[in-house]
Amino acid sequence: MIIYGKHPISVALSKGRKVSAFYALKGFDDPSIQPWFARVPVTWQDKPIHQEMFGKETQGIAAEVEDYVLKSLDEIQSTPLRVALLDGITDPHNFGAIIRSAEAFGLSALIIRKDRSVSITPAVVKASAGAIETVDIVQVTNIHQTILTLQKRNIFVYGLDGDGAVPLETLASSGPMAIVLGAEGDGLSALVKKTCDGLIRIPMTGQIESLNVSVAAAIAFHEMQKGR
Amino acid sequence: MIIYGKHPISVALSKGRKVSAFYALKGFDDPSIQPWFARVPVTWQDKPIHQEMFGKETQGIAAEVEDYVLKSLDEIQSTPLRVALLDGITDPHNFGAIIRSAEAFGLSALIIRKDRSVSITPAVVKASAGAIETVDIVQVTNIHQTILTLQKRNIFVYGLDGDGAVPLETLASSGPMAIVLGAEGDGLSALVKKTCDGLIRIPMTGQIESLNVSVAAAIAFHEMQKGR
Repeated sequence: MIIYGKHPISVALSKGRKVSAFYALKGFDDPSIQPWFARVPVTWQDKPIHQEMFGKETQGIAAEVEDYVLKSLDEIQSTPLRVALLDGITDPHNFGAIIRSAEAFGLSALIIRKDRSVSITPAVVKASAGAIETVDIVQVTNIHQTILTLQKRNIFVYGLDGDGAVPLETLASSGPMAIVLGAEGDGLSALVKKTCDGLIRIPMTGQIESLNVSVAAAIAFHEMQKGR
Repeated sequence: MIIYGKHPISVALSKGRKVSAFYALKGFDDPSIQPWFARVPVTWQDKPIHQEMFGKETQGIAAEVEDYVLKSLDEIQSTPLRVALLDGITDPHNFGAIIRSAEAFGLSALIIRKDRSVSITPAVVKASAGAIETVDIVQVTNIHQTILTLQKRNIFVYGLDGDGAVPLETLASSGPMAIVLGAEGDGLSALVKKTCDGLIRIPMTGQIESLNVSVAAAIAFHEMQKGR
């Protein structure tokens, strides 16, 4: 797949991801990427062609890299297991920012669903600022079934919800734990709300009382980190 | 100016912002905006024209509204004063998300600088999800001078910085307080770092140790809210 941006590409290279081709804007120069130009074919491009192929967010560099491999739940071996389930998040910037926060606060993996959901796109890789290289992404068919599977393994599953009654500080306890994040706008589905072991509310004092989902996720992950 | 998106427009209307014209995609229908079509001229548009004029993020509706008025520091009267200074943030999605979090966690105002910085654009209004209607935006010429002004008024000014030594929990104290957020990528300038009363670090356990600035801002605002 294609990825772009100086930082995502330089982290991918440093983590050993295989690169088969570079597409660079004429005059592009970056100390962490430049040395690779001797080993991998580079296509030097004029701005109009570069932007038409990859958009305006490339910082002058795109690369063809080996695909990111989605994992299955059984492949996640970290103990204690600490994961977030994304139930229908669709915005690539939000997904990228959530990957970045998951990495920063030490989550084991992110679980996404197969349909009507984000996937790993160039924009996601960019927004993750390199964190995609170290956070495992698990894809499942059904979030509700996955919650039940986790609960059978004695993992507490909390949902993040504006109407929740469980205090945020609960996430600061130790042990395995999962948190479910609902879609932008719609939040958690009724079925998921019912299935979770508890619904957690982030206290807010404003009139509008809503947070961007990647912001809410980060506040939850930050709290979860306290229990590690 | 033009704003777009169902939620931003419906909040603007509910807060009394004057609308002089609507531009709606043919077939657009929304219960909170529809009643206004009887009082304000509507231009019904085909998709190509609508998207060419306003982009793809409109959810089918754009509106010409009275401009958002930037304030001066002296106009912010809330007690205790609790503000964030944005020193060179340039991404409209980040600015919008920061406005939204500032509203949710009860900050008095956001302070932006005049040059090489965000301003209030349609994308910012959209990303703020209506919060722009209730958060005051102050524009200053120089962030460094503004920090000195705040300090003369006995307001503690903290910077958010990966190398900071002040614990995050310090923000949970009561009283007036300001926090400075640096630019995406570059962070705080050396001068601003030196001028702040203290630099605060958000503890992270990951390898990459970096957060999106709107995410870091929200974690700081959430902590500040505890002291109110």
